[in-house]
Amino acid sequence: MADSPELHQARMARKKTVVDAGIARASIERGVVIVNTGNGKGKSTAGFGMIARALGHGMRVGVVQFIKGSSATGEEAFFRRFDKVSYHVMGEGLTWETQDKERDIAGAKAAWHKACELLRDPAVAVVLLDELNIALKLHYVATDEVIAALRARPLQQHVVITGRGAPAALIEYADTVTEMKLVKHAYHAGGKAQNGVEW
Amino acid sequence: MADSPELHQARMARKKTVVDAGIARASIERGVVIVNTGNGKGKSTAGFGMIARALGHGMRVGVVQFIKGSSATGEEAFFRRFDKVSYHVMGEGLTWETQDKERDIAGAKAAWHKACELLRDPAVAVVLLDELNIALKLHYVATDEVIAALRARPLQQHVVITGRGAPAALIEYADTVTEMKLVKHAYHAGGKAQNGVEW
Repeated sequence: MADSPELHQARMARKKTVVDAGIARASIERGVVIVNTGNGKGKSTAGFGMIARALGHGMRVGVVQFIKGSSATGEEAFFRRFDKVSYHVMGEGLTWETQDKERDIAGAKAAWHKACELLRDPAVAVVLLDELNIALKLHYVATDEVIAALRARPLQQHVVITGRGAPAALIEYADTVTEMKLVKHAYHAGGKAQNGVEW
Repeated sequence: MADSPELHQARMARKKTVVDAGIARASIERGVVIVNTGNGKGKSTAGFGMIARALGHGMRVGVVQFIKGSSATGEEAFFRRFDKVSYHVMGEGLTWETQDKERDIAGAKAAWHKACELLRDPAVAVVLLDELNIALKLHYVATDEVIAALRARPLQQHVVITGRGAPAALIEYADTVTEMKLVKHAYHAGGKAQNGVEW
């Protein structure tokens, strides 16, 4: 068993945590751009996990949510408590129901404007642009403009971008891209649709 | 553009947030078991994002980390601050380097014992069993025993299990399974290996 794939994998996982700790201690020379995309769960949730982790390190963070969810979301209720968190939910929410496209575009642009402020502020160590990919796919915000802002951001700033359907150019530019792939979902399992942890 | 796939997608995303809010308000009849697996990033991070979300709802949560990382991890530093969080890191840490398999097994069993306490406590709304899958793959903890404990847990309790290589029986039992698939990683991009947000 000493040389089993499982033990090797476990050893690698252990090594990773050691490497990670080293990175934590080292001065970070260049922040990274992380994209969480795909049709599975956990894209935004992992983004919020990174926000928690950064707060654990005493860092200042910024969040812009491009799709306005319920004001009852747990993450908003939770992260708004901390004065190191600058939290912004897109002004009006996108008007999918009313189909007021002009208003949606204005809302997306206002959210992007807020994002740009965070992407210019070297005091903000991590910026989460939640569901930005959807605004990009709708062409409410231009991908070129986003990449230009990412290029021009403070050297050590990390950025996490979430949402299905990340544009190819953004994937190309990003340092780390994860596809959250749906294997199985409670909602797809018939009678379980009323249950969930997707607050 | 009104009927474009992007707009449809966005509308679905919006609908999801509405559904999610409904779920948040509704009394949850049965907790779900969520498995985050695969070789990409974000498995544990999404687990910690769920912990943050649950805290946002004022819930009591429990965390057991089956792979002891650095004590400097951001998530541990952060979540230990809250009295609604019961946080446990596996006693000795697995001894990959020293190859003391007996000690590893004892450590994994102790961590699982702690997990069982949480899985019996109806006051704990969400239990995160971080990297449990690795202990399962190594057969340090029996998958059958885990599934039996999940079946016997309090009705409304949610459980999140992370780590590569989730066993097939666990995937079969779980309600929601996401494969975090590596598309691209900064570590794989040569010169960028010194940079990271994997504290």
